[in-house]
Amino acid sequence: MIKTQTLKGFRDFLPEAAIKRQSALARMKTVFEQFGFDPLETPALEYAETLLGKYGEGADKLLYLFEDHGGRKVGMRYDQTVPLVRVISANSELPIPFKRYQIQPVWRAENTQKGRYREFLQCDIDTVGSDAPLSDAEIVDCTLKTTKALGITDAIMSLNDRTIFDALALTKKDIITLDKLDKIGRDAVVRELGEKIFKSVQESKPTDRLLGIMDALTSLGYKEGTDFRFEPFLARGLDYYTSTIFELKIKSYTAGSVAGGGRYDKLIGAFTGRDMPAVGIAFGFDRMLEALSELHLVPTQKTATQVLVAVVSPHMLTAQFVTIRALRDAGINAELYPDPEAKLEKQLKYADKKGIPYVVIQGPDEAAHNTLQLKNMQKQTQEELSLDAVINRL
Amino acid sequence: MIKTQTLKGFRDFLPEAAIKRQSALARMKTVFEQFGFDPLETPALEYAETLLGKYGEGADKLLYLFEDHGGRKVGMRYDQTVPLVRVISANSELPIPFKRYQIQPVWRAENTQKGRYREFLQCDIDTVGSDAPLSDAEIVDCTLKTTKALGITDAIMSLNDRTIFDALALTKKDIITLDKLDKIGRDAVVRELGEKIFKSVQESKPTDRLLGIMDALTSLGYKEGTDFRFEPFLARGLDYYTSTIFELKIKSYTAGSVAGGGRYDKLIGAFTGRDMPAVGIAFGFDRMLEALSELHLVPTQKTATQVLVAVVSPHMLTAQFVTIRALRDAGINAELYPDPEAKLEKQLKYADKKGIPYVVIQGPDEAAHNTLQLKNMQKQTQEELSLDAVINRL
Repeated sequence: MIKTQTLKGFRDFLPEAAIKRQSALARMKTVFEQFGFDPLETPALEYAETLLGKYGEGADKLLYLFEDHGGRKVGMRYDQTVPLVRVISANSELPIPFKRYQIQPVWRAENTQKGRYREFLQCDIDTVGSDAPLSDAEIVDCTLKTTKALGITDAIMSLNDRTIFDALALTKKDIITLDKLDKIGRDAVVRELGEKIFKSVQESKPTDRLLGIMDALTSLGYKEGTDFRFEPFLARGLDYYTSTIFELKIKSYTAGSVAGGGRYDKLIGAFTGRDMPAVGIAFGFDRMLEALSELHLVPTQKTATQVLVAVVSPHMLTAQFVTIRALRDAGINAELYPDPEAKLEKQLKYADKKGIPYVVIQGPDEAAHNTLQLKNMQKQTQEELSLDAVINRL
Repeated sequence: MIKTQTLKGFRDFLPEAAIKRQSALARMKTVFEQFGFDPLETPALEYAETLLGKYGEGADKLLYLFEDHGGRKVGMRYDQTVPLVRVISANSELPIPFKRYQIQPVWRAENTQKGRYREFLQCDIDTVGSDAPLSDAEIVDCTLKTTKALGITDAIMSLNDRTIFDALALTKKDIITLDKLDKIGRDAVVRELGEKIFKSVQESKPTDRLLGIMDALTSLGYKEGTDFRFEPFLARGLDYYTSTIFELKIKSYTAGSVAGGGRYDKLIGAFTGRDMPAVGIAFGFDRMLEALSELHLVPTQKTATQVLVAVVSPHMLTAQFVTIRALRDAGINAELYPDPEAKLEKQLKYADKKGIPYVVIQGPDEAAHNTLQLKNMQKQTQEELSLDAVINRL
């Protein structure tokens, strides 16, 4: 006997979950394309050297690395930004600015006890080749529109600029604190220095870039404080961000941010030796989906099938074939029960278990009258209708 | 400088290719769901023991196997049938028959010199838990309908039954050949035995199961010889097939079969100790797409973007925001050029390079008249229209 579990941190998505995922993804893609982002796909495996050292020290340890059959050191996709940067570096003929979306799984050997998955889907939008604040604003606009298209009305984007942190040097006045070491002791000096930095962050002002982004967002009809806000304590984890950073939160969903990103103007230079500005955001699809589920914004159906055509007897099969063809030709998702010897009761139980809302039954009597019985599985009602009427009803 | 190549056998799909892929996949999914198949997703990594020994000896060597951070032996998805069987074994509450489709990449360390990829997408449909010939017929029906939905009109499904090969024992008459070894020599005996087996395959008749499937297909309106045929020389590579085997060819595409599958009634027993019948088929998506491209059945557009809104000057930005919002709200894929200082010529060049068919330009004059210039990039014509007229046109 073989074990049937998935690896820790890896998941099967059974139809009910997969339908939810596909429904949300379809809506997201529509908005991404409305903003001029085109699809891009990159391989699951990259040369290890492409990935190592790009995400910060801690992250390198989370990479799935191994040697392939040709002795090459390879690694599994860890995010979609580094592969994008590699694509840009390898394809000089691409139109610039290059706007792409990418929706693929990534793999990180995370500690699963923290409720983290080791395989999860990322949904990224990025604009490469423009350093205009308007391209940052478009990422924010597209993210907010996507969130709205998913039905969420209380999302807010926090904005910050990492260059503010570069300017967090201590003033001469602050340095006097160091002189108090003998007088007030180590702990008090540490606390005083910390307090000064904290206060300095708290009092920091948006940069010109942030002001430009916020101006554009206001012109686009977004409200500061409701749809977006300057958040000087926002820092983000990844190493490669150079200025703007974003983080999207849903006010009614408290488990954490659902999207995050920023500007990374130096990452392409690491591949090509020539810097190229870039900005983007990644949706954490699992959290987004969890939020959508909690807010009842995704379908709860267990199947995409709308109707089961019951099989009454081997002699009636041809009639059942006519029905199923007509239903499918009308664009209805219709399933034929495959065993013509099965009892009707068994077929109805199957429809119930799979969650199919309707069952069509045609015995010799109905066939003689050119009608069908349409059974509503939830209401447990049944109507005798013509094929056309059944199609209209469904 | 970091190398920018993909690994051998792995591919980037730039927008033009990714748009083709998504277009074909969307059409395929629609048909799969019309036949009552629901989506399923499984992890990229499985326990190595789940995969080893399932595909035949040669295949085990093509598996991407490695040790994960926890010292577990793991392997990358090699097909979608074994993961399906694991899911069935692990989830006893699933409705039976369980019908699912699955569209995910698989990884095989193939020899790339044979034009094979090491990462490629599989599109599978399977019905688990029914041994009725009708469930085999439905797989064939759905495959032919999918192919037709993609625009292909000359596909033919070859059918065979592996149990025919079990019966290929030599008769007493054949055994006499062995007796001739001294008289006619080794080579002649080998040839004679081979000829007998070959002839016996050639003369083999369809099994009852195959007759049942072909009857159902005929009732469903398919023509023997045109849409499907009994092909006694069809064998298929994978070890796990037990009876029916299928292979789909497109007559006008000669590079090989585009889908293949069969019945595997013993594979689930290897996990659970209790056999359960199952049948399915996998589309080789790359070949299918190549066929579609050769037959001009996929879009050739380089972008999903329909119109670029040019940016005339920083002062005109608010007017441009109004235009872009209106276009997107009307469901049009519209892109705003991000740099308000860029010359119009540069923006037109960008639209041309990206393949955007229209550009909207609104300078102060047009703004005063509440109009827009709509430029057709292919015809190089330009019209002054109201915003509503532009929306209607697009």
